[in-house]
Amino acid sequence: MAGQRIFLDQASGGPVLPSARAAMEKVLSGHGAAPGGGHREARESLEVLRQARNLVADFLGVKDAERIVFTSGGTESVQSAIRGWGEAAVRGTVYVSEMEHPAVEASVRRLQKEGFLLRRIPVDGEGRLQWMKVKPGSGPGLVCVHLAHHDVGTVQDLREAVGFANSAKAQLFLDATFGAGWVPLPKGLEGIDLLAISGHRLGGPKGSGLLFVRSGFPWKAQTEGGRQENDQRAGTENLPAIAGLGAALEDWLRNGGNFRKTAGEAQRALLEGIRRKVPTAKLHGPEPGPERNPAHLGMSFAGLEAEALALVLDRVGVAVKGGSGCVTREMQIPPAMKATGAAPEESRALILLTLSPESGASAVTPVPDRVSEAVERLRSALSE
Amino acid sequence: MAGQRIFLDQASGGPVLPSARAAMEKVLSGHGAAPGGGHREARESLEVLRQARNLVADFLGVKDAERIVFTSGGTESVQSAIRGWGEAAVRGTVYVSEMEHPAVEASVRRLQKEGFLLRRIPVDGEGRLQWMKVKPGSGPGLVCVHLAHHDVGTVQDLREAVGFANSAKAQLFLDATFGAGWVPLPKGLEGIDLLAISGHRLGGPKGSGLLFVRSGFPWKAQTEGGRQENDQRAGTENLPAIAGLGAALEDWLRNGGNFRKTAGEAQRALLEGIRRKVPTAKLHGPEPGPERNPAHLGMSFAGLEAEALALVLDRVGVAVKGGSGCVTREMQIPPAMKATGAAPEESRALILLTLSPESGASAVTPVPDRVSEAVERLRSALSE
Repeated sequence: MAGQRIFLDQASGGPVLPSARAAMEKVLSGHGAAPGGGHREARESLEVLRQARNLVADFLGVKDAERIVFTSGGTESVQSAIRGWGEAAVRGTVYVSEMEHPAVEASVRRLQKEGFLLRRIPVDGEGRLQWMKVKPGSGPGLVCVHLAHHDVGTVQDLREAVGFANSAKAQLFLDATFGAGWVPLPKGLEGIDLLAISGHRLGGPKGSGLLFVRSGFPWKAQTEGGRQENDQRAGTENLPAIAGLGAALEDWLRNGGNFRKTAGEAQRALLEGIRRKVPTAKLHGPEPGPERNPAHLGMSFAGLEAEALALVLDRVGVAVKGGSGCVTREMQIPPAMKATGAAPEESRALILLTLSPESGASAVTPVPDRVSEAVERLRSALSE
Repeated sequence: MAGQRIFLDQASGGPVLPSARAAMEKVLSGHGAAPGGGHREARESLEVLRQARNLVADFLGVKDAERIVFTSGGTESVQSAIRGWGEAAVRGTVYVSEMEHPAVEASVRRLQKEGFLLRRIPVDGEGRLQWMKVKPGSGPGLVCVHLAHHDVGTVQDLREAVGFANSAKAQLFLDATFGAGWVPLPKGLEGIDLLAISGHRLGGPKGSGLLFVRSGFPWKAQTEGGRQENDQRAGTENLPAIAGLGAALEDWLRNGGNFRKTAGEAQRALLEGIRRKVPTAKLHGPEPGPERNPAHLGMSFAGLEAEALALVLDRVGVAVKGGSGCVTREMQIPPAMKATGAAPEESRALILLTLSPESGASAVTPVPDRVSEAVERLRSALSE
């Protein structure tokens, strides 16, 4: 295949932003002291940590920076949020859809085993949570909602989620591990009690993540030992990653509008081009716009199994994710496809095309032709 | 103070080894793809992951590399080991000393709350575990033993630990978060069922750690969600850190003998020099030799509170840790000081001087004079 390779699996993993890389390099080339000591080097590291935490607070729009916990990534943040609430609440009801990321699903099932009730939130054909169809329970409650869906790209209406949580007198956990940066967060995180972010999904380092725990919220630290992170997460601070994540979020605070606009243009160009070249292509989840993550397309190509199509696309120079953004052993088809009523053959055909803060429309121009070629190659390989 | 600063708080945090840094840079400058995809970039990342895991297997001397789990650090490894055993065993006895690192102590107390029995292993005046004084229980059991103590530097006799675990029909967890690299591990990890390592304590990256889980051992993964790490730890792999840790361990496999020898020489020079200049100085734990971590000195200076002395030492150009290597809120004095029978005034006076793989005897030459000066300054400041 002539032309440059095009990497469209950014949500799974991509390069760190140059700003984040520079911040990491600076820490990596230094003395490496831990922030918790009585010497000059420790104080210097403490200052790096403090600055990163303040940058995160600015990005989130919250004042209580000490309630921000640096974690090892999205999965840890999600589990710490849900299990930490469960440990503090002891009993209660968890409100959650059936199409959450496996990290969320595994955590709420763990609570269910411990005696918590699960109440499922139905979704419509484009992945919107149907709050009016859920009955609020009584007693302690946790509402789990994602910011943007990892497979169908749907941006959830957080005002509705907050309204529901209020009516149920429940707390609200926002899983922003997909969507943070790409989708604006409510001002001051109003109505949100717990928040999880994955660093690498917005150009921060792998092995970095965030947990925000609203002050006064019932929650117990899930990692115990040393007194790091204001007693909210034990373990020597991963300062290079923390500094990198702080720098990435500062970049988003300044340039997020551009990142969203550029990726959104690439997203529309990709979608229009693919639809023109491959009329049988189907978009899953909402059309591009405020209801869709601008860095995400989830599409199926009738009759073509996702992993096979991804392999052929790889040969013609386009890297995509074939299948769900995250699968578990028991998962035959992505839960979001079932929840949104997709046909089984569509469900097995889902491929994800995801963009980075640096993706632009011109960079993806060759993709529709290559998708068309891959689809034809695979169809002809499968023909009788 | 004339002369270069000397950083002797390496166990808390220090620079990564050049070998580890180079491996991290290589990954950081690449495409950043996650290893779990169907495209070329994912396969390249999978190969990086596979190579790092094999380097770890070589370092540990084990064949089943797939039982090696990359974690976010020592605390996660320790907690995953102990809680994961507890979840699988459901009930049983945990054998543990009263001077373990807070990460271990918090984990075993969590099991105790869930109904497990704790049986404490007494220690002698130099921190050696007194196995003959522990009565083996019946039913499932977990023996927790550290490789080298974080505050008193004692290297434990693992043959005795393995013998005890066998007699108790219990499994053995080795907390090597302090000591790995510095103290040789038993060949093929014989007799060890669970092992935890902290990457940064042997010159690997912060945010990196290892858990080894012997095949067939009752243990349940503590981080759930995606299927990474052979279903043993969910979450996008932190490939830069993993590659860095692999490279650091390869370095230790090749050059560990030199690292240990050089640090050991620096350790003896430091100790002798300090004893000569400050005759009231007291070493806690065993004398340098096979029973002591060659990168570690824990000393007290009669009547001088540790944190105050560390602050004055900082002013005269030496960074040390004042107080325990890890403290918790409830901890007034380091548990190892109490367990080894140190007087309360000694316990509050413990300072730690810890070395890196690159520390040599010549680099620490100015330290005894500076310690002497700091001790005099503090004594005179405190005199009536």
